[in-house]
Amino acid sequence: MHHWFEQHSDTLDRALDACQKRYAWSAYTESPSSKIHGKERPAAGKANFQNMLGNAFPLEQPGQIGVTGEEISPYTREPLEVTYPKIDINVLYQAIEEALPGWRDAGIETRVGICLEMLHRCSEQLFENAHATMHTSGQSYIMAFAGSGANALDRGLEALAYAYKAMKDVPATADWRRSFGGDGAAHLQKTYKIMPRGISVAVCCATFPLWNGYPALMASLATGNPVVMKPHPSAILPVALMVKTCREALLDAGFDPNLVTLVADTRAQPATLDLLQHPRTAIVDFTGSPTFGRWIETNCTRAQVYTETAGCNSVVLESCNDLQAVAGAIAHSLCQASAQMCTSVQNIHVPAEGILVQDEKVSFEGVCEALVSAVEDHLKDPAKAAFLCGTLVTEDIYQTIEGIRREGRERGRLLRDSGPYDHPEFTNARTATPLMLAVTQKERDLYSQELFGPISFVIKGGDADDCLKAATRDACEHGAITSHVYSANTEFLQRAQDAYNLAGASVACNLVGMPINFAAAYSDFHVSGLNPAGNACLTDLAFVANRFRIVQRKVMV
Amino acid sequence: MHHWFEQHSDTLDRALDACQKRYAWSAYTESPSSKIHGKERPAAGKANFQNMLGNAFPLEQPGQIGVTGEEISPYTREPLEVTYPKIDINVLYQAIEEALPGWRDAGIETRVGICLEMLHRCSEQLFENAHATMHTSGQSYIMAFAGSGANALDRGLEALAYAYKAMKDVPATADWRRSFGGDGAAHLQKTYKIMPRGISVAVCCATFPLWNGYPALMASLATGNPVVMKPHPSAILPVALMVKTCREALLDAGFDPNLVTLVADTRAQPATLDLLQHPRTAIVDFTGSPTFGRWIETNCTRAQVYTETAGCNSVVLESCNDLQAVAGAIAHSLCQASAQMCTSVQNIHVPAEGILVQDEKVSFEGVCEALVSAVEDHLKDPAKAAFLCGTLVTEDIYQTIEGIRREGRERGRLLRDSGPYDHPEFTNARTATPLMLAVTQKERDLYSQELFGPISFVIKGGDADDCLKAATRDACEHGAITSHVYSANTEFLQRAQDAYNLAGASVACNLVGMPINFAAAYSDFHVSGLNPAGNACLTDLAFVANRFRIVQRKVMV
Repeated sequence: MHHWFEQHSDTLDRALDACQKRYAWSAYTESPSSKIHGKERPAAGKANFQNMLGNAFPLEQPGQIGVTGEEISPYTREPLEVTYPKIDINVLYQAIEEALPGWRDAGIETRVGICLEMLHRCSEQLFENAHATMHTSGQSYIMAFAGSGANALDRGLEALAYAYKAMKDVPATADWRRSFGGDGAAHLQKTYKIMPRGISVAVCCATFPLWNGYPALMASLATGNPVVMKPHPSAILPVALMVKTCREALLDAGFDPNLVTLVADTRAQPATLDLLQHPRTAIVDFTGSPTFGRWIETNCTRAQVYTETAGCNSVVLESCNDLQAVAGAIAHSLCQASAQMCTSVQNIHVPAEGILVQDEKVSFEGVCEALVSAVEDHLKDPAKAAFLCGTLVTEDIYQTIEGIRREGRERGRLLRDSGPYDHPEFTNARTATPLMLAVTQKERDLYSQELFGPISFVIKGGDADDCLKAATRDACEHGAITSHVYSANTEFLQRAQDAYNLAGASVACNLVGMPINFAAAYSDFHVSGLNPAGNACLTDLAFVANRFRIVQRKVMV
Repeated sequence: MHHWFEQHSDTLDRALDACQKRYAWSAYTESPSSKIHGKERPAAGKANFQNMLGNAFPLEQPGQIGVTGEEISPYTREPLEVTYPKIDINVLYQAIEEALPGWRDAGIETRVGICLEMLHRCSEQLFENAHATMHTSGQSYIMAFAGSGANALDRGLEALAYAYKAMKDVPATADWRRSFGGDGAAHLQKTYKIMPRGISVAVCCATFPLWNGYPALMASLATGNPVVMKPHPSAILPVALMVKTCREALLDAGFDPNLVTLVADTRAQPATLDLLQHPRTAIVDFTGSPTFGRWIETNCTRAQVYTETAGCNSVVLESCNDLQAVAGAIAHSLCQASAQMCTSVQNIHVPAEGILVQDEKVSFEGVCEALVSAVEDHLKDPAKAAFLCGTLVTEDIYQTIEGIRREGRERGRLLRDSGPYDHPEFTNARTATPLMLAVTQKERDLYSQELFGPISFVIKGGDADDCLKAATRDACEHGAITSHVYSANTEFLQRAQDAYNLAGASVACNLVGMPINFAAAYSDFHVSGLNPAGNACLTDLAFVANRFRIVQRKVMV
């Protein structure tokens, strides 16, 4: 018998403390450096990945009716030729329902202990995961190791800590005695039992499959719900690796591995709707487009639905002390992961008259130039560019860029054109540098939607308050996951924070000298649930507390 | 400035402790006895109630466009002739939205302190409330004082304690520092803010208007959401009294009274749908029929929806040591409040061969006789009958009784007919004693719905396990709020508890010598949310944690 809860209890305790106090903490190693890991582990991870290519992924699940999978590496533009089980969902669901009772009755500590072990085992395969993420999601190696590795695991642990806290809020038993006057008296022994809702489906996105994948898995599984992972057809392998590891941990602990399963598909033969609309699907976690997310929120009313979609993340630039630092920070966001992150900046609002920099006026043009120059600066070293930008997850993004370039030129001005950059290692990599356009607020219909990929707008407003008004209105009506304000004016900064918060958006102020896209597990409440960019926060109590219910029994003593 | 949070902090602390350990506790006085309250307060309460009759209820709210109200006393069958403001909802909502910011920004302790004061003030008007509840909901005086008074207030305090706990789980600030290696370093000061969802609508039921009214009000208001109370057209006055008191407390604390408002209506001109479908309605708490509840759950997808509806509460009788005690306990449930409680028993499953009582077989007939005899016993003293049964909330129930009597006679056997009982004080009272029918499981379509009023079935099953199977299937498919098992057989008792819990229903075992309908605040998780009798538990963390969201701001230091 395993003792994983005890073994990992320090990790859980530290996560609970970090969630409570929200300081910077990580349970996992973020750097892939061989100074930390030695040379063997990175090499072995890469070899393991390479050995998967061209083969059937080793996953034995009930209901297999063939194989599926058509992933293409954004680095080589060659098919990975990894196949996954194609699944008859009804057969799978039957098997999952057979697995459920044992898991439901295993108790909080057993489930949480196994979840902690799953995260630990996943942390041992971060090199494999990094290569799998690179060659599906298109992230750079470093980003794939950190953002889709350690950072994503931290978010899973964060969700697990909240799930544990919410479940432990329910005592196991109670002793209840009272008199009812003339109606008698009672002494009751009460027992409270955590009950899962049922089968939980986690629909992952293409660019950061495990970023919300781990939190969804942990939140549902810890509270007793079996989880079906539904990866995006472009990015199955990282999810499959996780599912395999979780199933092994379940088996080692003596549980049915079908508590965690994978349903892979292709764009041509999608399986998502069948899962979402299945009458036995009780919980849905969705990461993806706002349109589909909204559809799920409105139509999948039988299930508990948690969504993170996207918005048009904005910057309002009012004034600053160091324009180069500010432009560098914003430009970093425009480049990082080719702006395919949920936290990437798209809309940069700048007053028509320009901004004050250390009491000197810099014109709107000057700001645009500083931004473009900062982007060029991030791109000038090809190795750094590759590390920062990674590749495009799908070919479609080229079409988006082309369309917006054309339309942007008609309706505004091209500040910087997008083009491929030369990847030092993969000559065929699907790359694109930032497309930057200058427009006025009249083009709101163009920029107030999420344009997926390295596309951004410098938007000329009236004064800074007018810029703020436009940006916060977009956040409120079209969603925002991150928002930034740069201002050396204390009063404006206060107004801006209030305005964003009132628009249901979280806001970051004057961030420079760090990757401003970074969302910190245990500290940032990621997604507010108050604007169209999603209905859930990953993670807060609301993300976990309704994944289980409580039934009780009371017996007269 | 008030110091209500400090003043009532002991009450809050004790409620938090009671919720955690779930022992028996009450913050309010359950008995209306003049030994406790003296003679003046009861008399003054009654006089206050009588002075309201025939008058416009003193409530000044924005958007008044006339008067409404057509309550009829179930005791006198005379109109109360109390009128309430008829409201233009759009005008009211505008005023509420103006009230929201001050409340949102007041902070947790201020809001919770005012909520505690509201409960305290409501506890000071329990005599008025008791008479208002009698003459609208039809409850007996004692039940109106306790069940709709102290017990309901306790549930409000319970919800408030959970809301406080959930909000305090979010720290106000955090200090966050980390290095990003080559990408820089950061020191961020973070601030987290609790944000309400918006306007909350609480739709109350006719029979126990404040039973879920207080919890809904407290859960939403404490978390920053203004609350519109929507009473049932038959039972406005108790809700109006509460609203008036809450508005006074808000005013005394310097807040806009429109944070708590009343929208009254009549059956002919209902206002509920306009409230539910209003685009600014963000939260709905509904207590009422399963059909309407299900409709709201499916259609009001823009709002957070919490429902408590109804089920066909069952008893499974396998064996016992004291049949008279068991029959007495069950009969108490059939009589209490004329079985108009959400916890009233409707379906009594008894094996065809009868049951063992102290190793002696008592036939199915014998059990039926014991039950009927126990009911007669509860009714034989008119004063006790009146105290126990109260009156029927609406005239409709007579038609239900008539229909079921006719159909029951055709499809089964009349064990005990329903008829009026003579109320010692109100000669015109709308009364009905229990209608009891014996049927087999073939009549499932008849008994597997909630039949509102004093109607019950003794259902002949196969053996005890067959009875259990039928009862738990009904709980699962048609809902159950309470379920009872009587058995002296340890193994059966265990099986029965497991079966009910697996059906998503809580279960009570061998309860005798106490009112078995009693649901204890701070101890019983009322409604599981796992069967069709409602989607929410009143109260657990899930009931409160999603009524607010979190927005943050982070500033680089």
